[in-house]
Amino acid sequence: MNKVLRIGIAGLGTVGSAVVRLFQEKSERLVRQCGRQVQIVAVSARNYKQDRGIKLESFIWYDDPLDLASSADIDVFVELIGGEEGIACHAVKAALKAGHHVVTANKALLARHGVTLARLAEKNGLLLHFEAAVAGGIPVIKVLRESLAGNTISRIYGILNGTCNYILTRMGEENLSFERCLKEAQILGYAEADPIFDVEGNDTAHKLSLLTSLAFGTVVSLDDIYVEGIQNISLADIRAADELGYRIKLLGVAAITDTGIEQRVQPTMVPTSSVIAQVNGVTNAVVIETDLLGKLLLSGVGAGGNATASAVLGDIADIAKSQPDFQHGPVLGSPVIALKPYKKATIRAHAGGYFIRLTVDDRTGVFASVAKRMAQNAISLESIVQRPITETQTHGIKTIVLTTHQTNESAVYKALSGIMQDGNLLDKPQLIRIERSS
Amino acid sequence: MNKVLRIGIAGLGTVGSAVVRLFQEKSERLVRQCGRQVQIVAVSARNYKQDRGIKLESFIWYDDPLDLASSADIDVFVELIGGEEGIACHAVKAALKAGHHVVTANKALLARHGVTLARLAEKNGLLLHFEAAVAGGIPVIKVLRESLAGNTISRIYGILNGTCNYILTRMGEENLSFERCLKEAQILGYAEADPIFDVEGNDTAHKLSLLTSLAFGTVVSLDDIYVEGIQNISLADIRAADELGYRIKLLGVAAITDTGIEQRVQPTMVPTSSVIAQVNGVTNAVVIETDLLGKLLLSGVGAGGNATASAVLGDIADIAKSQPDFQHGPVLGSPVIALKPYKKATIRAHAGGYFIRLTVDDRTGVFASVAKRMAQNAISLESIVQRPITETQTHGIKTIVLTTHQTNESAVYKALSGIMQDGNLLDKPQLIRIERSS
Repeated sequence: MNKVLRIGIAGLGTVGSAVVRLFQEKSERLVRQCGRQVQIVAVSARNYKQDRGIKLESFIWYDDPLDLASSADIDVFVELIGGEEGIACHAVKAALKAGHHVVTANKALLARHGVTLARLAEKNGLLLHFEAAVAGGIPVIKVLRESLAGNTISRIYGILNGTCNYILTRMGEENLSFERCLKEAQILGYAEADPIFDVEGNDTAHKLSLLTSLAFGTVVSLDDIYVEGIQNISLADIRAADELGYRIKLLGVAAITDTGIEQRVQPTMVPTSSVIAQVNGVTNAVVIETDLLGKLLLSGVGAGGNATASAVLGDIADIAKSQPDFQHGPVLGSPVIALKPYKKATIRAHAGGYFIRLTVDDRTGVFASVAKRMAQNAISLESIVQRPITETQTHGIKTIVLTTHQTNESAVYKALSGIMQDGNLLDKPQLIRIERSS
Repeated sequence: MNKVLRIGIAGLGTVGSAVVRLFQEKSERLVRQCGRQVQIVAVSARNYKQDRGIKLESFIWYDDPLDLASSADIDVFVELIGGEEGIACHAVKAALKAGHHVVTANKALLARHGVTLARLAEKNGLLLHFEAAVAGGIPVIKVLRESLAGNTISRIYGILNGTCNYILTRMGEENLSFERCLKEAQILGYAEADPIFDVEGNDTAHKLSLLTSLAFGTVVSLDDIYVEGIQNISLADIRAADELGYRIKLLGVAAITDTGIEQRVQPTMVPTSSVIAQVNGVTNAVVIETDLLGKLLLSGVGAGGNATASAVLGDIADIAKSQPDFQHGPVLGSPVIALKPYKKATIRAHAGGYFIRLTVDDRTGVFASVAKRMAQNAISLESIVQRPITETQTHGIKTIVLTTHQTNESAVYKALSGIMQDGNLLDKPQLIRIERSS
């Protein structure tokens, strides 16, 4: 039991380097928290010589992460390479086949292959920990897996992408355009050089798929997520939302409905007075709604070397404290054989209303025709804002902002299609869900 | 390993009854989450016949919880009796001596005897779990104990008493007096018949002492906490705070300083835009500040049968998943022998300013003399509000509200003492700390 736990790390980017540095700086604290000696013994990355601000001399170097994964030198394989296919996937499989516990921060890998990998880990009696894959330093995986015995979860949602939240926050606080805030996020290193994956919502979807599986005991089902990013959110939307008492957040939401599970990633309006509305900048947050607890909220730093490394270290400590040859808790909360198939919900009446922003001709009768289309589709309006919203208002163009009482998406689409037919729209209409119960 | 885990429950009040009910309603889910059969086999309470809405026939009944605690019929003793001394303490000791794991929701017991009980548990290789003792359904004990490997915690603070937070929230939202909101809380069952323990801050102090020990690896030191309750917070304070962009919350705060650990429970002003300011009603919240994570916030229902029972069930599930005869993780995060002595900080310059409300004579020169006393003590004023704050303003009486820039408590006290000497105060001055970095 008290023998040294030997760690091999594959991937020495921001997170991998932070893990190595923390092991070097905090070895005493780690030993105390792990209850035994824990040492990095081997590492693998593309280029040995790259300056990462850490010393690698004391580690065995592997050019090929696959060799590291199956090496007899290690007890735990830490996969920080990234990517849903290819070398990361092969290496994790090799490690599990070689009898090594695995820690990974790779949400894409797990969103695609989580069930397969969980089955492999269970079959071999190994731990596969992935706290770092969702919401960085927020321990939401552990809480879902271990703290909620007896709870029935009805909904889980969160701000899962720091880049998007940074952009939306800056747009609102500084009245800046989406493009400008995205550029800023790139300069500050929050957004990748190719930010598509973040701003179009795919990163959030990967993380959501894992939360859904843990929350509802179902197989991971990435492809059933409806995904919409923040690329079409304009400053006009953010200002109008603010006037109406809302903030716009990119939420990943998974909920149990009468017909199955609904998973969606989309810009959502939440009341300014809600806790989640105050989650700003690169901070992430997850809300878990259960029968016993009501809302449980966790928020914190969702990305970056240190926060992600903290989650990796927590996973390593859990492995250090686990009993060898002990039947470990299942990777996805339930044993793979007990995971339910994913049953996708049919689209349902959404209980929360919609925000609709229309760019129309500034002439008599336009508003009346919009109102008529709404009434025809039994959509009850909660508020109407007609005064200018953008400073760059062009003559002859008017913006109408409506919020609706509870209705369903198909009624809203019918109304919008009618308004288009009437020939009054000068631009694509904007439609954002309102979650009043956030 | 797969034999049934037998539970004995002592105390069938709100929480105990909820635990029994949940075992009856959710047995299938619990078995899945615990990975084995878990059954309540025996219970003890004062009165068998009391109607609790649960069936007790299938359990062995014990009139004396001490007999239950040392019975060979059980594997886990769940203490839900309450009270820092007496039967709860004796029973927990008896259970540990008899080789039973213990789950307790008893913050008072642990605040007084936590180290002694932890030592006993460790000596006998047993688990002593107490997630339910702090912040109800929020899994902060597990997060502190298991998730933060490698993190150095600098500060931990939170809203730990739902009754106080309910009262402060209602006062602010409805413009009601402290007394009225307290009565309301009692009618709704949030506050005890004798609410002194809650409103004077002692309940918060008990919980804080446990968080401090886990966060900083020190022995539990309840008596070193500076405790001030909310009984002197008036509607005038809440309104003035609101005007200045703050909310008043009863915070328990523990922080590492240059001279030791500072622990205090006191009404504190936090910026209205902070996440913790949005934690309203009976909700609790804890913020953990670390070098790797910045701020990690957890918020949720802090009290009540279901939320507390959820924490008890989580602890039971952890025990169910633990390996018999395995050297368990230490009760207080570090082994008792490794706990550092508690070193109390000397009072330090508080980095955040103060809110000062003075009731003074409405005559010429009063404000000038107040300003002079502040200047004499090198206190720089940030804002001054002189206009009427209360509707029941009495003729000839004026309220002055000041907020200061960063200063220290002794300077503020000196200034206030000078103002008193000048004979201008008509009432006790109000002094509330501002935590701008909340």
